[in-house]
Amino acid sequence: MSSFPAYLDTVRPEIDHALDRLLPAATDRPARLHEAARYSIFAGGKRVRPALVLLTGEALGAPRDALLIGGATLEMIHTYSLVHDDLPAMDDDDLRRGRPTAHKRFDEATAILAGDALLTLGLTTLAAAPETISPGRRQEAVAMVGRAIGSAGMIGGQVDDMAAENDWPEDPRIAAELLESIHRRKTGDLLTACLRLAGIYADADERLDAHLTRLGDAIGLLFQIGDDVIDVEGTDEQLGKTAGKDAAVKKLTYPGLFGLEAAKERLAQVRDRAHELAETLPGGSGGFPALIDYLATRDR
Amino acid sequence: MSSFPAYLDTVRPEIDHALDRLLPAATDRPARLHEAARYSIFAGGKRVRPALVLLTGEALGAPRDALLIGGATLEMIHTYSLVHDDLPAMDDDDLRRGRPTAHKRFDEATAILAGDALLTLGLTTLAAAPETISPGRRQEAVAMVGRAIGSAGMIGGQVDDMAAENDWPEDPRIAAELLESIHRRKTGDLLTACLRLAGIYADADERLDAHLTRLGDAIGLLFQIGDDVIDVEGTDEQLGKTAGKDAAVKKLTYPGLFGLEAAKERLAQVRDRAHELAETLPGGSGGFPALIDYLATRDR
Repeated sequence: MSSFPAYLDTVRPEIDHALDRLLPAATDRPARLHEAARYSIFAGGKRVRPALVLLTGEALGAPRDALLIGGATLEMIHTYSLVHDDLPAMDDDDLRRGRPTAHKRFDEATAILAGDALLTLGLTTLAAAPETISPGRRQEAVAMVGRAIGSAGMIGGQVDDMAAENDWPEDPRIAAELLESIHRRKTGDLLTACLRLAGIYADADERLDAHLTRLGDAIGLLFQIGDDVIDVEGTDEQLGKTAGKDAAVKKLTYPGLFGLEAAKERLAQVRDRAHELAETLPGGSGGFPALIDYLATRDR
Repeated sequence: MSSFPAYLDTVRPEIDHALDRLLPAATDRPARLHEAARYSIFAGGKRVRPALVLLTGEALGAPRDALLIGGATLEMIHTYSLVHDDLPAMDDDDLRRGRPTAHKRFDEATAILAGDALLTLGLTTLAAAPETISPGRRQEAVAMVGRAIGSAGMIGGQVDDMAAENDWPEDPRIAAELLESIHRRKTGDLLTACLRLAGIYADADERLDAHLTRLGDAIGLLFQIGDDVIDVEGTDEQLGKTAGKDAAVKKLTYPGLFGLEAAKERLAQVRDRAHELAETLPGGSGGFPALIDYLATRDR
């Protein structure tokens, strides 16, 4: 793999094809709901989560049809979380990747229900497909992903993230712990689930599952610290959203807490740890080194 | 079984115990989210759906621990749908069973996320438990329930129900078809899923699954026509919500479409059909006759 962005370009058509095949047609009744679901899924997302499933599955030798279906379900779940987080009652965002958010383009009720439908379809598809995976492994996949995105995972992270906006702890050590805990749950747990899902499809044992969990956690942390750094350094044009918004609403971030330089140092530490974990994977590190370097140096 | 309300009284403590055990504690972080989930689950619901799972499973001889867990997951999913439907952007209801709705008691963001968490926990628990059921059957349960509550089922019914409020078809035959289709998807599909879930736990073959589907569809229809009739005839006190609200917002209903007497005749026809289907169940009709008579004659 030359670079992770090049890998994303290579696999994106396959991923988009899988999503197109799994989502109801925009003309299927109720058309407005399916239109909204497709509008949000095909909104120019980078497909990082499905690509992570593919990249991990390639390193471990899992069946490709399973990786594509599993990756598509995690993209549906990721998209549901964005649609709900953008709602006026939550983060109240009008734009995402330069386009109106679902509740602006459609309406709030449609956005809430389209999110519900994407979550439901994501978990259901994990159980119903793919046929190359045993029913027991599929049941395991639903249970694992469900825990990652539930109230102890992604949903809980969003709740605490909103609560922290106006209630930043005074003690920097407590604030740092809260920050890492929010990031891990809000973004990290689903990224880790990408690696573990590929592991399930590759018939990983408990030892390999634990290894993938640690590697996934490091990648999730890289991802989030990188996002925070970009929010400080980036411009509106690079981001497709309002730069510096995190600071404007007093959101807890790494640079806000430790300063920009310390945040970059932490990024480098986590990068090294991730490389170590990738190198000790049983089948070799596959595309992980390129991914890790990308996450540690990206500027958008 | 003397009567279905008496049966509900008998099984409710067991069902509530299962729900209490499966839901995170109200003190678990994030506490506000779990408080809201518990507030909505323990809001005085009749537990009709878990009772349907138990009643069907008793007739078919399924393991009781499975029926209790499965019934609790469907109650979580039913509750999520109520919490989201009550939101200001949807049906905008301030009261449910005489108490403030979740977004009134807490706030909109918490209500949206508590609904998301209940849906996620419901589907995840179907996959993760119960241990007496094979992984393959559990995977089947998630897939079956997921279809019943997805965009072709419950969510789709809610979308079309909201759309129909202000756009009632002129032609009564077309209106009647739309009405039945909305009811079947919005309420019926989840009630049918209660019977089919018990079937899965009793190792039902395809033939029995089809029989349970037809019986469940008839019970769902009884349920909904009954609700519409009660809304016309009931008082605020009996309902714990504003009586006549359906007519006030021009909602499509059976009495609104056919008149009260014709709606009651349809109720009697569907009751007879349901009795026939219950009597031809392989293990006998169990508690179904009492349930069917209750649904055909209840006044609240």
